[in-house]
Amino acid sequence: METAALYHRPDSEMAYLKDQKHFQIRLKTKHDDVVKVELLYGDPYGTKVNEKDEGTWEYQVAEMKRVYATKQHDHWITEVVLPLRRLQYAFHVYGADGQEYLYDDRRIYRYSDVGIEKLSCFRMPYLHECDRIKTPEWVTNTVWYQIFPERFANGDPANDPKNTLEWGSKKPTPENFFGGDLQGIIDHLDYLQELGINGLYLCPIFTAYSNHKYDTIDYFNVDPAFGTKETLKELIDQAHERGMHVMLDAVFNHMGDFSMQWQDVQKYGRDSRFAKWFHIHDFPVSYEETANFEFARNLNYDVFANTPHMPKINTADPQAREYLLNVATYWIEQFDIDAWRLDVANEIDHEFWKDFYERTHALKKDFYVLGEVWHSAQEWVGHKEFDAVMNYSYTEPIIAHFVKKELTAAEMVDMLQEQLMLYRDQTNRVMFNALDTHDTERILTLCHGNKDLEKQTLAFMFTQYGAPCLYYGTEVGMDGGADPDCRKCMVWDQNQQDHEMFNFTQKLVKMRRKYSQLWSKSRLEFKSVDKMSNFIIFKRQDQDMQVNCIFNTGTQPQKYTLGENDQIILQQNVTEDGQIKPDGFCIIRIN
Amino acid sequence: METAALYHRPDSEMAYLKDQKHFQIRLKTKHDDVVKVELLYGDPYGTKVNEKDEGTWEYQVAEMKRVYATKQHDHWITEVVLPLRRLQYAFHVYGADGQEYLYDDRRIYRYSDVGIEKLSCFRMPYLHECDRIKTPEWVTNTVWYQIFPERFANGDPANDPKNTLEWGSKKPTPENFFGGDLQGIIDHLDYLQELGINGLYLCPIFTAYSNHKYDTIDYFNVDPAFGTKETLKELIDQAHERGMHVMLDAVFNHMGDFSMQWQDVQKYGRDSRFAKWFHIHDFPVSYEETANFEFARNLNYDVFANTPHMPKINTADPQAREYLLNVATYWIEQFDIDAWRLDVANEIDHEFWKDFYERTHALKKDFYVLGEVWHSAQEWVGHKEFDAVMNYSYTEPIIAHFVKKELTAAEMVDMLQEQLMLYRDQTNRVMFNALDTHDTERILTLCHGNKDLEKQTLAFMFTQYGAPCLYYGTEVGMDGGADPDCRKCMVWDQNQQDHEMFNFTQKLVKMRRKYSQLWSKSRLEFKSVDKMSNFIIFKRQDQDMQVNCIFNTGTQPQKYTLGENDQIILQQNVTEDGQIKPDGFCIIRIN
Repeated sequence: METAALYHRPDSEMAYLKDQKHFQIRLKTKHDDVVKVELLYGDPYGTKVNEKDEGTWEYQVAEMKRVYATKQHDHWITEVVLPLRRLQYAFHVYGADGQEYLYDDRRIYRYSDVGIEKLSCFRMPYLHECDRIKTPEWVTNTVWYQIFPERFANGDPANDPKNTLEWGSKKPTPENFFGGDLQGIIDHLDYLQELGINGLYLCPIFTAYSNHKYDTIDYFNVDPAFGTKETLKELIDQAHERGMHVMLDAVFNHMGDFSMQWQDVQKYGRDSRFAKWFHIHDFPVSYEETANFEFARNLNYDVFANTPHMPKINTADPQAREYLLNVATYWIEQFDIDAWRLDVANEIDHEFWKDFYERTHALKKDFYVLGEVWHSAQEWVGHKEFDAVMNYSYTEPIIAHFVKKELTAAEMVDMLQEQLMLYRDQTNRVMFNALDTHDTERILTLCHGNKDLEKQTLAFMFTQYGAPCLYYGTEVGMDGGADPDCRKCMVWDQNQQDHEMFNFTQKLVKMRRKYSQLWSKSRLEFKSVDKMSNFIIFKRQDQDMQVNCIFNTGTQPQKYTLGENDQIILQQNVTEDGQIKPDGFCIIRIN
Repeated sequence: METAALYHRPDSEMAYLKDQKHFQIRLKTKHDDVVKVELLYGDPYGTKVNEKDEGTWEYQVAEMKRVYATKQHDHWITEVVLPLRRLQYAFHVYGADGQEYLYDDRRIYRYSDVGIEKLSCFRMPYLHECDRIKTPEWVTNTVWYQIFPERFANGDPANDPKNTLEWGSKKPTPENFFGGDLQGIIDHLDYLQELGINGLYLCPIFTAYSNHKYDTIDYFNVDPAFGTKETLKELIDQAHERGMHVMLDAVFNHMGDFSMQWQDVQKYGRDSRFAKWFHIHDFPVSYEETANFEFARNLNYDVFANTPHMPKINTADPQAREYLLNVATYWIEQFDIDAWRLDVANEIDHEFWKDFYERTHALKKDFYVLGEVWHSAQEWVGHKEFDAVMNYSYTEPIIAHFVKKELTAAEMVDMLQEQLMLYRDQTNRVMFNALDTHDTERILTLCHGNKDLEKQTLAFMFTQYGAPCLYYGTEVGMDGGADPDCRKCMVWDQNQQDHEMFNFTQKLVKMRRKYSQLWSKSRLEFKSVDKMSNFIIFKRQDQDMQVNCIFNTGTQPQKYTLGENDQIILQQNVTEDGQIKPDGFCIIRIN
């Protein structure tokens, strides 16, 4: 057995309370190297001969299940229930080579050498409900719709900024404006309801200089070009009435350089009362321009990326911190928002996010905190900082396989499984999954206009763990290249809209919401991934139902035989005789 | 290459700020499977062709060093300095079989397949000083001395409890008393100073029923049999004057059943205002006695272990929590203690300890929080909860090899190295290392009276990372079996004391304090561990000096040849011609 590959980490995503009752334990082994794993577990103070404190440890045995298998690893999982809420455990691992090992908190050794008497068990000393990672239940039943407010709809021409262009008359640039606003969103809530989505994610709406508003000037105001606080209140109230949750976008990593605070620093230098709000290494603040507006050299203060116009906030400064935390609570208390999406959240300190989580959840128990983290994020979601992250690490491999054909099906499935094993189940089921956002090319453009492929990829994402998100306009067939081209004006002209795409997206949303428990919670099991043909079959199953999903990402039709009572939930490019053609898929209810 | 054994975890003890400047990165591989590891690292926003945001990532290469090697794993380490405090990185791993792999945040793949263009790097997005794990510097220069107050010295017969026995006249039992008190400690501060120790760890001194005082009745009072608050104040002040730090012991996991709070619950049941202070499943509280005082059946409330007399505190209850946090700060504010040792700390929730750490450190920046955790403790010391734990996981393998001969030298060294790799360097160097405590058999008894072996084992512990602790009386040759026998009265009769042991211990303490930076901070490198002969050689080295340590734990003398300028710091059982005999050791300064 390859004992060097055995891995377990107590008090982490590999050993945690999944809900009030079930404690989940995971073990990683080398792929196809282990035939059986038994979890030896029990109360740390439980002995067989109790009264005299003599005798041996009284333990139970639970067989672990190999739930995921990748090229490198097998992942074994089991769940136990502990009446006394105390646990110690070790692994008895049976190798494919016939060798047996014990793996405990201190070492790995031959079963025959020591036996269980000398175990130094892993410990979860007491399972505290207050330490359990809880995620909001409503997110598991949410299909998000992301709106870039300046480009969704112009509902009130009276608040249009200077030089507003006619809707859709030009390509988007980093500087131009088309007059989109909050009233425009209110005006189309019926439309969104018809589409079926029930979560609105709005890119920043606070006063800022740019069209994207990620360069906040005033965190306590709605940008005048977007409307007033009253408009926002109406939007949120009306959304709530329709059963939609509303998520706003906040930029706490940096401010815009037009903010009052940074302007003050520029004016008064080290005497500014905001001097400590930023990471300034020398006064006066300065930098060397280059041909690129967003790239400067020799900055003497920290910024986002390399842009001198977004000075990084010193979130460790008590006053700056308190200011931002007040922003966080203000929009919950006064406007009843349901979630924050946090821009560049990974570059802000953990202490800040712990406070942030505590303050927001004190106001709303099922508040949702979504951090922008493109890489693995155990430290944020494994503690009370974020409920979830923008799940690019999960959706990028999907795109790399389905769309870009850079990964084989097997490679993609491996990466998806490894991603799922980075997080607790309750985290996975509220992850924010999007194929495209305001920061990426649109999926249709990535598909080179192949709408069947776009639909297939969307369908795949909708059958995964996590809450899916549609980027505005996807449902009417919008395309767009990298920023700023992905921020085109929403197409409202019926003649320009792709109605077939709308119907498909609507069905997808309906399917997702109808079986939300299945999609967001039930285990995802890859039954068969054919390395040669790129034919992916996986199963979702809970106590109520089983669904099989089949995706053909290859170049040849593939046969899939339906069972007698199988019901097709959704399909595409499937012939009458059950051939699933390239770019085709079939989602089937088995029972 | 065994890619299944590659392991790295970002934002953990494998990737962390060691001090304000140095960021340490670790990688685990299968033992002797990899010949070279290069860390590819740089600023996430750094590209070679900067102005146009085109071009490839601009990275540097740092060769990692294989610092530890065990039967299963090699541990590779490097440290980098990042001017912009932002980092992304990946590993380029060269296998012994000639294969090269890239290991990044999402997968492991052949170097030749992809190259570095497609890397999805691990990220440490911004290194925040406020997130850095800091541990108190003074602990690295501390040799602790643990006192069980009831048995150290009776300085004031006036406060003796009823039925106090004559000092040392009987064997200790769970119930008897000998009159030890705080005045007794004050009276012997000169003695302790002569021994050289500079940290006093006192087992609980608060009002309690038992002789061990772990069943607290009043957290805000000194037990009357130990003295008054004035006596305590004098003890702490006098210790401080002598350069000694003082650590008290608190039991926050449970209370004694004679506490006012539990008595109230017993009296008023669910109407008690303390009903929520405990984990009570039903009222009235009840249990079924057994022959064993400390073992009950069918308890309807949670307790420590199985004893009905120590009801577990519900630390999630705001009032109970606030009460305990006030205890924590009271003894710092009013009595200037320097550290808390926390009993059964692993069974209390993380949220509580985070608050605890914050409150205590707000009062004293270099306060030391020591948790009783016998198993691996990453979640506590990797976040701001404990600075360190009672390092049984480190000292037990030492005893298992040196004393019990249950582990070979190689097995012990493997376990020690794996333990060191569980924690950040700054944690390892303030760990609390003890060969025995009030909870274990005394080391001399474990050695079956072999004092050479005892000294050898002590010497080994004193040359390791972490702050060593002497259990009272070790220095005068005291023995004692398991609790309560390990809690005998301190031997003050000069004729009964082992003066040779005192001299040895004194030398050991002196050696430890003289070279404290070396012992607590410099890397520990095992140069040679002979599996057959049990001859252990390791090196400690910093910029100022190098020390070699040689321990013979076998049954045959072994030759070790000194260099011309080598100076012996401490040795035992070494013949004139350089033979190190069984139970012998030699600690040598090389430069």
